[in-house]
Amino acid sequence: MSSSVSPLAPKHVPEMPVIAGVRLATAEAGIRYKNRTDVLLAVMDKGTAVAGVFTKSKCPSAPVEWCRAKLKGGKARALVVNSGNANAFTGKTGRASTALTAKIAAKAVGCSESEIFLASTGVIGEPLDATKFDGVLGRLAETAEPGDYLAAAKAIMTTDTFPKVATATVKLGKAKVTINGMAKGAGMIAPDMATMLSFIFTDAPIAPAALQALLKSGVEDTFNAVTIDGDTSTSDTLLAFATGAAAEHGAPKISRASDPRLKAFVKAFNQILANLSEQVARDGEGARKLVEITVEGAKTKASARKIAMSIANSPLVKTAIAGEDANWGRVVMAVGKAGEPADRDKLSISFNGIRVAKSGARDPSYDEAQVSDAMKAPEIAIKVSLGLGRGRDRVLTCDLTKEYVAINGDYRS
Amino acid sequence: MSSSVSPLAPKHVPEMPVIAGVRLATAEAGIRYKNRTDVLLAVMDKGTAVAGVFTKSKCPSAPVEWCRAKLKGGKARALVVNSGNANAFTGKTGRASTALTAKIAAKAVGCSESEIFLASTGVIGEPLDATKFDGVLGRLAETAEPGDYLAAAKAIMTTDTFPKVATATVKLGKAKVTINGMAKGAGMIAPDMATMLSFIFTDAPIAPAALQALLKSGVEDTFNAVTIDGDTSTSDTLLAFATGAAAEHGAPKISRASDPRLKAFVKAFNQILANLSEQVARDGEGARKLVEITVEGAKTKASARKIAMSIANSPLVKTAIAGEDANWGRVVMAVGKAGEPADRDKLSISFNGIRVAKSGARDPSYDEAQVSDAMKAPEIAIKVSLGLGRGRDRVLTCDLTKEYVAINGDYRS
Repeated sequence: MSSSVSPLAPKHVPEMPVIAGVRLATAEAGIRYKNRTDVLLAVMDKGTAVAGVFTKSKCPSAPVEWCRAKLKGGKARALVVNSGNANAFTGKTGRASTALTAKIAAKAVGCSESEIFLASTGVIGEPLDATKFDGVLGRLAETAEPGDYLAAAKAIMTTDTFPKVATATVKLGKAKVTINGMAKGAGMIAPDMATMLSFIFTDAPIAPAALQALLKSGVEDTFNAVTIDGDTSTSDTLLAFATGAAAEHGAPKISRASDPRLKAFVKAFNQILANLSEQVARDGEGARKLVEITVEGAKTKASARKIAMSIANSPLVKTAIAGEDANWGRVVMAVGKAGEPADRDKLSISFNGIRVAKSGARDPSYDEAQVSDAMKAPEIAIKVSLGLGRGRDRVLTCDLTKEYVAINGDYRS
Repeated sequence: MSSSVSPLAPKHVPEMPVIAGVRLATAEAGIRYKNRTDVLLAVMDKGTAVAGVFTKSKCPSAPVEWCRAKLKGGKARALVVNSGNANAFTGKTGRASTALTAKIAAKAVGCSESEIFLASTGVIGEPLDATKFDGVLGRLAETAEPGDYLAAAKAIMTTDTFPKVATATVKLGKAKVTINGMAKGAGMIAPDMATMLSFIFTDAPIAPAALQALLKSGVEDTFNAVTIDGDTSTSDTLLAFATGAAAEHGAPKISRASDPRLKAFVKAFNQILANLSEQVARDGEGARKLVEITVEGAKTKASARKIAMSIANSPLVKTAIAGEDANWGRVVMAVGKAGEPADRDKLSISFNGIRVAKSGARDPSYDEAQVSDAMKAPEIAIKVSLGLGRGRDRVLTCDLTKEYVAINGDYRS
């Protein structure tokens, strides 16, 4: 496991305000890790709306199946997250484990089991002993405070090297509402979803269906546009909770995502998603470079996305960037293998604003020294212009380093 | 570039017999490498049939486009291969370069330019100076001899750590015919094709259309079932040449691939393809483990292939194997992300014959020490049983090591 903080970590960690109607607490349940918190309990006031999007894996974890089923009720009273064990591919034991965790949590919080949401992250395939939550969750429910979002973000980390939080305050009607978010990465990350776990909290009074629509639309160009290694987790979970507490000081109750009063809120909400998903890319396992890939001139946005993802997931492109090598030939390779419309002789490619290839050949003004110098930057922007249409998209990834191999070669040992 | 030979290299290199009607010669043209051969000329007798399959990249190299066009004639007199520069994404210069190379070769051999076949491997995007072949090809045509196939295989290497050859002798009718093959890897290898360059020579009298059908069918479970890094080259080329010289000592002339007299030949031909493609996997960049992935019980063979490739291309599976970690949870993840029908609770997984997961959970008899011990072997067989149908497939890959990152992080520098 990596011990030093990623050089790409944000320089500034925001002060996280309180969200009315949300209380947090963390503990050391000793599920896997020693001497660190590994359980988060978030308690929400009655009437909290919940929305969620999950991994598209055909083999999802037991908590993902639990949340999907409970989402139909649209209401949440508590979220229990543990790190260290994903409770994925644990069969009947896994289902029993989620049921028991929910039972313990419901008792601790004083609500129905169907208002409990669960997320687990860590090793796949090992039974999760839910009895470890017994006692712990009761204590957490008693001590939960409006709180410490940074501590919460720390408790859900696995191979992350820094906790990921973001916040925004925005007007809804004439009232001020707040949105807080947290996320954890850092490997097995590819659409769709791009992070293993992320949670958003707001005091805005937004009905479940509207919140679900916002979330579904918001992830498309944020969490679903990030890839670390092309590997999709069995556990990817993004949940949003809206307590509605801001209604008390005049925020209008929103029932439709298309409500024009939501405009500023939607913008801020999407910025939080973008911020958190970028932090996930910045903390990709072993990452030393943040890589932004923009594809323009594609036939469609979907085609641009597919090509951008082909580049972002190419081991050869990613290792070249790790080696600070502007090996644009590998970008051509990745465009070619995407299977989408592309005309080699119309292709242009730039690295950090320096055009290296134009109309299917090396740019006449290509200066290797200049490009090599640009590749030393911690952030690399690759732009590919296909010259075919107006489809455009952008995805984020990171480089592929020896550290990635080291982290993943002995994750379990 | 790697200097030490892969530990997975075959222990035995076969004696390569002569193929009547084929003469070979190699030289140092100084295209990129120093102090090693980098050009191969194979001269074939009149009447030689040719067949080929190529990369499916939308951005193929200039030599691939050249060969595709010339294949229509069905006849070959010479093959020119260079290593060090792929002549890919070189625009008009690239096309001019292939045309000039063919012109020089045609003059040297004394044939039509349309009977010249070309292949280039190496860096993408750098202009290939074909004038370097001037003089060299003439000299090679004069000195070409029936044969040193091992020297030829050496001349076409890039990051390969060992030359790859295979041979078989088999009856066609009552006559003995010979098949020789060579291949080079070692990165940017994924279907379809799985090797960058491979060439097969035989003295069997097989018509172009029949040879093409054999090749197309033969690659499906050999070269197209190998992946190193999921990256498809712009240059992948597999050409087969049949001189027909064996007709002189009684081999029947074959015009259809379905000819029953071909049975033994087809078997040997496919074994050569399997042998060479396995050598490519054994020489994957940085590889320390050969990994065979078998998926059975899928809905269809195509579905099994897709799931097997999802496992084979997963960085997390590959790094776990590098770390000798039987992390079957990552196999589950890769099954889940393939998007193919899979039922988590019917899934069984074994590593080197030891079942680790059964019916969607850890095998009750799972013994970590036993499995860990098995993971130390240089060859790892992963078997996934989906329990859904009769679809079965098998692919080969290798592990993902720090050396892969090192090789590809400074390939150009």
